[in-house]
Amino acid sequence: MVIVGGGFAGLQAARRLGGARDVAVTLVDRYNHHVFQPLLYQVAMAELSPADIAVPLRSVLSRYANVRVYQGRVDAVDLQARRVTAAFGELAYDYLLLACGASHTYFGHNEWEPLAPGLKTLEQAREIRRRVLNAYEAAECIRDVQLQRQLLTFVIVGGGATGVELAGAIAEMGRFTLARDFRNIQPALTRVLLVEAGARLLPALPPELSAYAVRALTELGVEVLTGTPVTNVLPSGVQLGERQILAGTVLWAAGVQASPLGQGLGVKTDRQGRVIVNPDLSIPGHPEVFVAGDLAHFAQPTGRMLPGIAAVAKQQGRYVARAILADPAGRPHGPFRYLDMGQLATIGHNRAVAQLGRLKLRGRPAWVLWVFVHIYYLIDYRARTLVMLQWAWTYFTHRRGARLILDKPGPPAAG
Amino acid sequence: MVIVGGGFAGLQAARRLGGARDVAVTLVDRYNHHVFQPLLYQVAMAELSPADIAVPLRSVLSRYANVRVYQGRVDAVDLQARRVTAAFGELAYDYLLLACGASHTYFGHNEWEPLAPGLKTLEQAREIRRRVLNAYEAAECIRDVQLQRQLLTFVIVGGGATGVELAGAIAEMGRFTLARDFRNIQPALTRVLLVEAGARLLPALPPELSAYAVRALTELGVEVLTGTPVTNVLPSGVQLGERQILAGTVLWAAGVQASPLGQGLGVKTDRQGRVIVNPDLSIPGHPEVFVAGDLAHFAQPTGRMLPGIAAVAKQQGRYVARAILADPAGRPHGPFRYLDMGQLATIGHNRAVAQLGRLKLRGRPAWVLWVFVHIYYLIDYRARTLVMLQWAWTYFTHRRGARLILDKPGPPAAG
Repeated sequence: MVIVGGGFAGLQAARRLGGARDVAVTLVDRYNHHVFQPLLYQVAMAELSPADIAVPLRSVLSRYANVRVYQGRVDAVDLQARRVTAAFGELAYDYLLLACGASHTYFGHNEWEPLAPGLKTLEQAREIRRRVLNAYEAAECIRDVQLQRQLLTFVIVGGGATGVELAGAIAEMGRFTLARDFRNIQPALTRVLLVEAGARLLPALPPELSAYAVRALTELGVEVLTGTPVTNVLPSGVQLGERQILAGTVLWAAGVQASPLGQGLGVKTDRQGRVIVNPDLSIPGHPEVFVAGDLAHFAQPTGRMLPGIAAVAKQQGRYVARAILADPAGRPHGPFRYLDMGQLATIGHNRAVAQLGRLKLRGRPAWVLWVFVHIYYLIDYRARTLVMLQWAWTYFTHRRGARLILDKPGPPAAG
Repeated sequence: MVIVGGGFAGLQAARRLGGARDVAVTLVDRYNHHVFQPLLYQVAMAELSPADIAVPLRSVLSRYANVRVYQGRVDAVDLQARRVTAAFGELAYDYLLLACGASHTYFGHNEWEPLAPGLKTLEQAREIRRRVLNAYEAAECIRDVQLQRQLLTFVIVGGGATGVELAGAIAEMGRFTLARDFRNIQPALTRVLLVEAGARLLPALPPELSAYAVRALTELGVEVLTGTPVTNVLPSGVQLGERQILAGTVLWAAGVQASPLGQGLGVKTDRQGRVIVNPDLSIPGHPEVFVAGDLAHFAQPTGRMLPGIAAVAKQQGRYVARAILADPAGRPHGPFRYLDMGQLATIGHNRAVAQLGRLKLRGRPAWVLWVFVHIYYLIDYRARTLVMLQWAWTYFTHRRGARLILDKPGPPAAG
């Protein structure tokens, strides 16, 4: 059994198969760690350190003697020979789980990527942190008011959960965290624009929660522009049709594109490159090959697509593990069924939205729920206590502990 | 008043001058943070995260309305015009404190630097962490036993405190932390060589403590080679005269070279490029220009050079602040006097050496002292509690929380 990808789906499957008799599992990931993606934006916003939300795959899985972990990129799958080709060599499989997720898409404008980084990996989170903090540092040591204003303008493209979280966090950072630290600029003048091409923010949630999100963001000083497609990204900012916004930092939280490995399988994929899977998450003609998480396109009986969230990936990973364990006994396994636990998005301090079945929450109750849910799901990590302490610290002081600019500080020399 | 460098000397001076009447302080550093350098090796060894030992200069100094912080490189000092040239523009000064420290020197072999990184900044610490952890990952997914052995061989060049700490920490990591995490390799077979050109390790400490360090390191499995100069560094390892050591990772903890800014002053410098300062830390002919910390060569009345440690830098920074505050009143200030608080070096769990005046400690007492001293000096950081918790965690479990490989994971693609 080979698992490609150590995200929520892959890790969950590996753990369920860990310790099982007669199953040898090899998990391959290009990173050595699993990331708790729902909190990635907090690393980008200098509230948490990478180690608070990530854990080495090897150490999570070390207790299972039948599980191996290899770090390396997987380049190809040979369905006929039942082999995957990784950077370090080839691996034969009897069962295969592809769970290598998705990255951002720039809708055919890959030249925008260096100008507007996305937020899918810890490295990207660090890059965003670097850009946001550097913008304030650069504005502090110049005198050109026009340019200062541009440096303190942040455009976030995409009004899904990540975009909303980033916009709220930058606005709060400017108003509270950095407020007293500068002499030549007023961080409270930070201008944050959240630009969404669609009709409303958080399209996966009910319209009344979207409306609340707009109100909450506006209270924080964020300018929300819905129905506004970005027509160009430039080093100086973004073009929104006729309108140009001068901005020092542009962040991308818009389109999602599945890993290219899916399209290499020769089976049907959707517009985002997701593999259209059978009801048991296998691919047509290959009952031994499963696809799960953000790489899978799973049509629910209702016809609605499943959202690209951790809960779906984890349930699918668990389902695949169970299917493989049941298979040798010849027992047929029923179709995958998603147990909907609801959805959450946070906007800032005491501001969040939540949907749990028919129950809709907003404001402080939703935020408290968000905090508890995230701590609960971090339970697998040793970092739980540390994250709580750091949150408590940030909550009460509005300071951020991890406000370090580490990358590319300019050529090493004096000073 | 302009301060160049936010290390121990510069930060200490800025704090002492913070809030003083009639003094406006501008501190310039190429990074946005101050680093607690004595614990840098723990970041390199994945025991702590960068945010645990660093703090944004801006937030430490924000309470002083008369202190400004600019992030940027300083390229030149014009002593006649009393101006420094930074990347972002020029700054005039009445008083100047140069405290921009030192970096490693490769004794004329700068081509060794990419092959054997040093440990002076958080970025270098991350680079070392990346190399060390990647060596184990790479060894795990190959089958060539010879190459595995090479990948698990680590050479540390330089037997001062940093070299001893790195060697001990890598040996412990292989024996304890990683022991159960791999399937194809035995991390306990990690080979660590500590190579020192001089006659003994820790030359700043008494010989009996050096002897203890060798015993303690040997117990951990480290091969200590003193009197052994490195004659070449290669991608495949190091050359020690006739002898070649095949190694996957070479780390540099040998020579120290002061910031080039010192040599640009046109006053006398020593072989390491340190500025030879007057008894009051000013430079000849310029009573308004002070040099402190690793950039200063201060000859004690005994003729012995002061060591390049945090305690010296902090006392010098404090002294300069006092001298500047006293100056307008026309009061003469006496020469700088170093109050020797002793020296410490740690080797591993329960293994350290300490000298406090005539008192010499080794083993667990020295290690406990080391832990308390470091926590005490981290007192200025909000991270104190977190660091303690993480140490406690590592101490009792031998796990490392920050074992993430973040940089350069290979091209972003599937898997």
